[in-house]
Amino acid sequence: MSKERPLILVCNDDGITAPGIRTLISEMNQLGEVVVVAPDSPQSGMGHAITINATLRCDPFRFDDGPQVEYAASGTPVDCVKLAVNVILPRKPDLLVSGVNHGSNSSINVIYSGTMSAAMEGSLESIPSIGFSLCDFDWDADFEAARPYIRKIASEVLANGIPQGTCLNVNIPKNTKDGYAGVKVCRQARANWEEEFDERKDPRERKYYWLTGKFVNYDHGVDTDEWALENNFISIVPVTSDFTAHHAISTLNSLNLE
Amino acid sequence: MSKERPLILVCNDDGITAPGIRTLISEMNQLGEVVVVAPDSPQSGMGHAITINATLRCDPFRFDDGPQVEYAASGTPVDCVKLAVNVILPRKPDLLVSGVNHGSNSSINVIYSGTMSAAMEGSLESIPSIGFSLCDFDWDADFEAARPYIRKIASEVLANGIPQGTCLNVNIPKNTKDGYAGVKVCRQARANWEEEFDERKDPRERKYYWLTGKFVNYDHGVDTDEWALENNFISIVPVTSDFTAHHAISTLNSLNLE
Repeated sequence: MSKERPLILVCNDDGITAPGIRTLISEMNQLGEVVVVAPDSPQSGMGHAITINATLRCDPFRFDDGPQVEYAASGTPVDCVKLAVNVILPRKPDLLVSGVNHGSNSSINVIYSGTMSAAMEGSLESIPSIGFSLCDFDWDADFEAARPYIRKIASEVLANGIPQGTCLNVNIPKNTKDGYAGVKVCRQARANWEEEFDERKDPRERKYYWLTGKFVNYDHGVDTDEWALENNFISIVPVTSDFTAHHAISTLNSLNLE
Repeated sequence: MSKERPLILVCNDDGITAPGIRTLISEMNQLGEVVVVAPDSPQSGMGHAITINATLRCDPFRFDDGPQVEYAASGTPVDCVKLAVNVILPRKPDLLVSGVNHGSNSSINVIYSGTMSAAMEGSLESIPSIGFSLCDFDWDADFEAARPYIRKIASEVLANGIPQGTCLNVNIPKNTKDGYAGVKVCRQARANWEEEFDERKDPRERKYYWLTGKFVNYDHGVDTDEWALENNFISIVPVTSDFTAHHAISTLNSLNLE
């Protein structure tokens, strides 16, 4: 980090007007020079999708009187990070923050999350990167109690960095009047979604489906993000972009694969 | 696996009519009962995206006279797997195969790949799952030399399974007349894309962009998928859906995060 004020890139997946990103922008304005490059429409559930078969727009945007500079882009959260780093920003930012997501990105949700994919893309670019999520899907969710924790975690990462090749998945319990039990570094819980497709018929009697489901936690460990959140802690999971199952290599070498 | 013929689910991201998936279907027909649930349009680069803000179609489809049963779905590769498991299939399949992708999914491409996301979704459902990719983006790519390897790897996984919570990322060098050097179990190389946005102006003088870039391998290890592919081996990387950077937990615990 240079002696000038740090340069902070802000992104999300709920879209540039979402209350969660507006909260994040106002907190980051206290820590550095803020540039926002965020989707012009909701991009929840986009995972690490990129736009390779269509064009991208990325145009200046203004929402309030804050000091930040903003751009709204037509693509996915990962497109936004790539556009920011390669087209918009004058230099590599000192920090990337994504969110605050409206809804949890704990456990296996990390794999579907556009918010977290933006943070992972930042880590691929060697930018210290953090995804923040509040466990409340409501558009009018209350982000107030989360603000000091977001500022503190971002400051600490600006000051000390995080291990190369990782980013942070920060999940914050839904606001209660009692405040939080604290902050806990965790591993990703082993959990999954049990899907229930809602089958309907259109006016022409053709079937269609809505994807729904319920989250099931199979993991009884007390070192997981799910345990932390259930016990009113803010959870932090370090996330890697090396997807190799290193422990499985020797087992596979015992198979006759050729 | 029961004594009946195994049930094999086939998916991809290039779309249900792509030559790659037609190759995979014809090979899997020799190993079991095949059900295809694949996208009705190209879904490359969709990563682990799911469709939560729109409806899904999933309708019977016929392409050739093979014994397989086929459905074309309007969503992403991961949507296809979820529809197959929850709506289409009579029981959990014994094997999921995704591909054969037209183009490499080695190294960091795993994070952007719809082909591999379908395989990862299979592993989340505890289905032994394999993504196959040929390092040739051409629609008319030659899959012939790859066929016996695909059949052998799929047979071996049907017979012996793979470690719980993992799936296989199989990449096959572009066909050469000399055949392949063999099959190698590898780790994911540390590599990345250096993006180059192609900036243009539309007829109304507004800027737009095409995402392009070049792949850069930073990893000099001889145990990586990139090394294997450069040396004409078929690479197999076991892939996990636990994204926790376990090695980073103690470092993070040394920071003052609250």
